[in-house]
Amino acid sequence: MTIKAVVFDAYGTLFDVYSIQVLAEELYPSHGADIAVKWRDKQIEYTRLITQSDPHNTSGSQYFRPFWELTRLSLEYTLDRLKLNRESDQVEKLMQQYAHLTPFTENLAVLQKIKASGVTTAILSNGSVDMLASAVKSAGMEDVLDQVISVDSIRLFKTSPESYGLVQQTIPVNKDEILFVSSNAWDALGATWFGFTTHWVNRQGLPFEALTPRPHYSGPDLKSVLHSLELAE
Amino acid sequence: MTIKAVVFDAYGTLFDVYSIQVLAEELYPSHGADIAVKWRDKQIEYTRLITQSDPHNTSGSQYFRPFWELTRLSLEYTLDRLKLNRESDQVEKLMQQYAHLTPFTENLAVLQKIKASGVTTAILSNGSVDMLASAVKSAGMEDVLDQVISVDSIRLFKTSPESYGLVQQTIPVNKDEILFVSSNAWDALGATWFGFTTHWVNRQGLPFEALTPRPHYSGPDLKSVLHSLELAE
Repeated sequence: MTIKAVVFDAYGTLFDVYSIQVLAEELYPSHGADIAVKWRDKQIEYTRLITQSDPHNTSGSQYFRPFWELTRLSLEYTLDRLKLNRESDQVEKLMQQYAHLTPFTENLAVLQKIKASGVTTAILSNGSVDMLASAVKSAGMEDVLDQVISVDSIRLFKTSPESYGLVQQTIPVNKDEILFVSSNAWDALGATWFGFTTHWVNRQGLPFEALTPRPHYSGPDLKSVLHSLELAE
Repeated sequence: MTIKAVVFDAYGTLFDVYSIQVLAEELYPSHGADIAVKWRDKQIEYTRLITQSDPHNTSGSQYFRPFWELTRLSLEYTLDRLKLNRESDQVEKLMQQYAHLTPFTENLAVLQKIKASGVTTAILSNGSVDMLASAVKSAGMEDVLDQVISVDSIRLFKTSPESYGLVQQTIPVNKDEILFVSSNAWDALGATWFGFTTHWVNRQGLPFEALTPRPHYSGPDLKSVLHSLELAE
């Protein structure tokens, strides 16, 4: 295998979306974990409804709304669903936290090592351009990422083939020369269907989806990607 | 409003998918509710991944698998995910129960009343042809439904426009002359986007999705559909 570029999913893979739970627990005692999970699930659900409802008669889905906006809407829904008080101050605090998510601790060193080996590094994310820029910056990853690719321009979310197709428009190499890395099993599956070489970061020790095929590689954290690339010491 | 046909979603709307919880609890004490919810969520997730990953270069998604098969796969995933013993006997029992889901109590009388008023009645479902036939039969609804439409033929699930488009191929009336009834908020949303007149059966008293627009009508059970049709006494 010759991998010429490593492309990372952002939310859940580089940035810990459940790290929001601590602030959520502070704002809504005993509901933090529930808010974090339901917020994330709803956010992803909205990307899917928009994408699969696309009538393919315009450029992208006519129901498209940027991920940042879907993130806010799904938070508002979640608080309503849990019958929790929703004051703009609390929503704002959680959204600001989301704009500066904690990266997983090992990530920066892994990215540095891949970059130093001469392989192109990139993000492909559902995230809006602005929110990605702010997350990358606050994680100190600006210098270790060659490209940050958002689905904004095509108005369709992952796992649409149009979204994965964006990578080759930016990094013109063969599909299987791209190692796509995601901790979201569904994203790893979609990328495998698309034709990328794939690595599933299985941080929680979950079974893989019952849909096939399995990703080419997997491991418990981002360091395992170095093994797939044969860069581990 | 002149409604010429009432089209019902099946799973969750006519048939109670969470009724499976009782058997699940019997087979896996203290896990019944968790199995029922996670099984349903995973089943729907798989329909979405398949539909939104469609490269639009063949007839339907090349990743398509019938709903019955997805139902089994999602059950197996759920049991693995919860680290529960998965013996074929238990899986078989749950699947057989799924083939004969309990209908909500008011449904048959509502369907009879609509049918008697001269309005066309139908199901549009993600369900496979066989599983729908068996569910309709065991609910005693064969005589009150004019059409049972499955997405099988197009190999794309709801909320794809292709799936809702099947209705007009079978019942050639205008979109807004079709009252589409679903207890799944996402399905009511997708059908509203598509252009149907819509009625959301909100059995659990949930907030509607944060995506717009809202369905045209809603009510707490299937009887409320009679109000939308002005057939209530």
